Amino acid sequence: MSEHDSLEYLSNLRHSCAHLLAAAVMELFPSTHRTIGPSIENGFYFDFEFQEPLTDDDLPKIEAKMHEIVKSWKGFEKQELSAQDAKDEYPGNKYKHELIEEFSEHGKKKISFYKSGSYRDLCKGGHIEHPDQELKFFKLTSLAGAYWKGSEKNAMLTRIYGTVWPTQAELDVYLLQQEEAKKRDHRKIGRELELFFIDDMVGKGLVMWLPKGTILRDQVEKLAKEKEHDAGYQRVASPHIAREELFLTSGHLPYYKDSMYPPMEMDDGTYYLKAMNCPHHHRMFLFRPRSYREFPIRFAEYGTCYRNELSGTLQGLLRVRGMTMNDAHIYIRKDQIKDEFKKVLQLTQEYFDIFGLKDYWFRLSKWSPAHPEKYINEPKNWEYSEQMLREVLQEMKVKFVEVDDEAAFYGPKVDVQFKSVIGREETMSTIQLDFLAKARFNLNYIDSEGKENNDVFVIHRAPLSVHERFMAFLIEHFAGAFPLWLSPVQVAIVPISQDQHEYAATIQQKLDKQGIRVEVYGEAESMQNRIRKAAGQKIPYILVVGKKEVEDGTVSVRQRGSKESTVVKVEEFASKVNEEVNSRVI
Amino acid sequence: MSEHDSLEYLSNLRHSCAHLLAAAVMELFPSTHRTIGPSIENGFYFDFEFQEPLTDDDLPKIEAKMHEIVKSWKGFEKQELSAQDAKDEYPGNKYKHELIEEFSEHGKKKISFYKSGSYRDLCKGGHIEHPDQELKFFKLTSLAGAYWKGSEKNAMLTRIYGTVWPTQAELDVYLLQQEEAKKRDHRKIGRELELFFIDDMVGKGLVMWLPKGTILRDQVEKLAKEKEHDAGYQRVASPHIAREELFLTSGHLPYYKDSMYPPMEMDDGTYYLKAMNCPHHHRMFLFRPRSYREFPIRFAEYGTCYRNELSGTLQGLLRVRGMTMNDAHIYIRKDQIKDEFKKVLQLTQEYFDIFGLKDYWFRLSKWSPAHPEKYINEPKNWEYSEQMLREVLQEMKVKFVEVDDEAAFYGPKVDVQFKSVIGREETMSTIQLDFLAKARFNLNYIDSEGKENNDVFVIHRAPLSVHERFMAFLIEHFAGAFPLWLSPVQVAIVPISQDQHEYAATIQQKLDKQGIRVEVYGEAESMQNRIRKAAGQKIPYILVVGKKEVEDGTVSVRQRGSKESTVVKVEEFASKVNEEVNSRVI
Repeated sequence: MSEHDSLEYLSNLRHSCAHLLAAAVMELFPSTHRTIGPSIENGFYFDFEFQEPLTDDDLPKIEAKMHEIVKSWKGFEKQELSAQDAKDEYPGNKYKHELIEEFSEHGKKKISFYKSGSYRDLCKGGHIEHPDQELKFFKLTSLAGAYWKGSEKNAMLTRIYGTVWPTQAELDVYLLQQEEAKKRDHRKIGRELELFFIDDMVGKGLVMWLPKGTILRDQVEKLAKEKEHDAGYQRVASPHIAREELFLTSGHLPYYKDSMYPPMEMDDGTYYLKAMNCPHHHRMFLFRPRSYREFPIRFAEYGTCYRNELSGTLQGLLRVRGMTMNDAHIYIRKDQIKDEFKKVLQLTQEYFDIFGLKDYWFRLSKWSPAHPEKYINEPKNWEYSEQMLREVLQEMKVKFVEVDDEAAFYGPKVDVQFKSVIGREETMSTIQLDFLAKARFNLNYIDSEGKENNDVFVIHRAPLSVHERFMAFLIEHFAGAFPLWLSPVQVAIVPISQDQHEYAATIQQKLDKQGIRVEVYGEAESMQNRIRKAAGQKIPYILVVGKKEVEDGTVSVRQRGSKESTVVKVEEFASKVNEEVNSRVI
Repeated sequence: MSEHDSLEYLSNLRHSCAHLLAAAVMELFPSTHRTIGPSIENGFYFDFEFQEPLTDDDLPKIEAKMHEIVKSWKGFEKQELSAQDAKDEYPGNKYKHELIEEFSEHGKKKISFYKSGSYRDLCKGGHIEHPDQELKFFKLTSLAGAYWKGSEKNAMLTRIYGTVWPTQAELDVYLLQQEEAKKRDHRKIGRELELFFIDDMVGKGLVMWLPKGTILRDQVEKLAKEKEHDAGYQRVASPHIAREELFLTSGHLPYYKDSMYPPMEMDDGTYYLKAMNCPHHHRMFLFRPRSYREFPIRFAEYGTCYRNELSGTLQGLLRVRGMTMNDAHIYIRKDQIKDEFKKVLQLTQEYFDIFGLKDYWFRLSKWSPAHPEKYINEPKNWEYSEQMLREVLQEMKVKFVEVDDEAAFYGPKVDVQFKSVIGREETMSTIQLDFLAKARFNLNYIDSEGKENNDVFVIHRAPLSVHERFMAFLIEHFAGAFPLWLSPVQVAIVPISQDQHEYAATIQQKLDKQGIRVEVYGEAESMQNRIRKAAGQKIPYILVVGKKEVEDGTVSVRQRGSKESTVVKVEEFASKVNEEVNSRVI
């Protein structure tokens, strides 16, 4: 079974289960109005208008009814009804009537129904063949409110979510992952560890980084700045907005307009929040004539961009409207494509190594000579550059796949694909080659023969993804128990009694002077409570200090996850911490 | 003569000189149409419509004519003309006719003229008494184009700028300062040293920081982060935009609306670019309940704000639309006002010491009990807090003045006033106390008795001013020859010939590893040219390396401004540089 067939099968399985869910609901709550029930990633849902509010306690009853009903479902039989008959099937159900009007083109066409057992519903199809044998491993997972047709102008319906799998094992794995995902939810941990929050008064999709989250952010930024300095990148800083003219030149306008924030009319023209950093960097490249000797020119910036996503689609740090990127644009000659692309990929791997991320592979997205209209018309550059990228991946001996007809308009790219700790597959970073910018911005340089040369290639890259997304990933990956170098608070000091508060303060100062991030847990609470709190904050080292420690100038060190303590001199502890931080031990 | 009288006198002197300029122009170019000629800071201008274009070469001729004419000017005599007579005074001059229509309210009122010698002009007054004795020390400084009434929809006129002073000495000082200002112009140096530029395609008032300018910026940021960490500040990061609701809560809307960028309509409400960071920080304060033990809470951020200034008023880094601030908001109890205000002022002084800035004084802006409607109605807080601020300034033994009726609506403030190296007086930083925010945002804390307490005071402070402004100040102050720790490039290596290129590269690597910023001047040009270029870039150290240096592992060091060289071992040089950088020697 190919991947595609398997996906289609899962979709059919899930949509069939949505029918089963509706059948059970209609038996248990006959006055309910059903609406629609599609399959979604990992499951399905069905939206209803209930006469009485439903609670989570009702879900097991509905599940039991589903198991009972499915025994009589031997298959799905297609039936065609006239629009009037179709409407009669749903007395008083304005949602279904609206759909029937639409699908029948106001009575002109017949309406397709599917029947299984004694249950019949308006449906375009897409089912499994033997529901009684295949629909076994399901679970109703949650309840939510949902607007009819997704519009807040319409009535609010009740949505029941469920999941279904071909085997019990798959269902178990999924439910376990979901449970794990809940525990690792970056929004939950973000709030508990006071890393960030999203404030309705400030706006959806806009992240408010609290002091501890800002430390986390700064540490990642520091890492990138260090590595990129060593790799010959130069830092620049550009404004977050620009005139319409810039985005017309880049081509973001008018094509990308819907994804950009609305325009702002000023006394000297129309301005936009930037959705990308590249146009600004290209203008910096053009600040003065460039010589072949300067190449590669690597402009890096922690640039913040804005995308006008629908408010309903925003989700914690994973889908935001304001996004900061460890972005860079590299200007190269044609003969440098291979070498520079390799360096970028190696830097990307270096980052992943530092974060201890291993479960990733590469994806080379190519053009399609069969659809030349979708791509910039430079066949030689396509062939040459794709071959260069392929050679890089081969030489690096990394796992990669090649995909036709998935490149951007302006050049091939390499994506880094990840499987997160909770099983979500995602693209972590994209390294994009661009041979359109040179023409749009008239990028050029003086070559070794003193002639103007327009053959400037650009690499767009953000190996650490969008900052917000990467933070979500890190929070989930480490479940908030960050490696020492990343931890917002690295050391908690817990004085046993009031008598050691002064000693605790002295140690705090000493460690702080060495750049170690320390908090004293010294409020008037029991020592056990304070240790529990510090542990709950997932602080890597807890130092308990009592009378003995004060006398000896020592601390009693307890490492995160361990119940053992070791007593060491303060200086010894400090140098151990520094060493661990400097080598960024995971 | 009080300061105010003196300013009025200078204004009268300058406006009188504008009359004199127009008189000379009308004698030399009789077919010219005159328009208006006000006094401005340091001088005056007059706008004309010439029949033939004027050039800089004409200015000395006009000056000579002014000196000739003024001998017959014994005073200014006021005359009143009917609108018709007034118009007859300016045949074919539509500009004057427009003004006469306006001032006479369409013929209803008489028009005031002033006459001196044989020259008469429409004028509301404001002159000196004895032009023949007082109008001696003037100079016409430049020509420019200017739209009639400042609107680009109107005709473009020719503006002649001039300056005039009571004594030759003052004129000389001013002209010298102007010459110095031209040399130190931050826009010129910014371009020459490749620090920043402003790009019309990106937009006016929006700064594009090039790699070297970004280093400068980062160094100042690093300093602030270090000092503020030591002073107990916590870094936060907030989005650049927010919903209307936030600014309605803060009170920026509707009162401040004209200074803000235009609104952006999104699917979930109206958004604005922020003009201040405080509302975001207040919301961070409210993230969770606060305890009296946590105070002072100090949130610091390099926050970028946006102000909708008219495009015509924007000027290099001095007046921008996108401004980044080393901003902070400090939340304190009433009993902490004095102590915390003092700490902030001391930190401000510490910054100025580091930059070697000495020529400054403080200004305490107070409310006025005589105008209570202009101020938040908390007389006790006004009196108490002003007394606290006064005591701080007294205890610090700094130069300060007190000014009534100049406070903000929400509390008293202390400004730091500067005299720049080119004689421009400006407010470098403001430390503002705020007792309105607590009510607007319902800021509160749990006090030592476990009760909710709403008496939260806020200090707004940005000791290093707006980043852009401060950079302009630094560039001008040092004329681009920054102290070593700030210099974008700290060391230039000049190999005498091709043979030392490898050695030069090795030294570069060695120094770079130690965090020293190095460039090799190794192109195929004469050594003298390369040294001249490096010196032109105001690089603090130039290392010349030849055969001898390679053999001995040394460098020949030439310090900026000196013609002497000393030969030292590379390691010795590196440690000297590091020491100088770490102690931020000016």
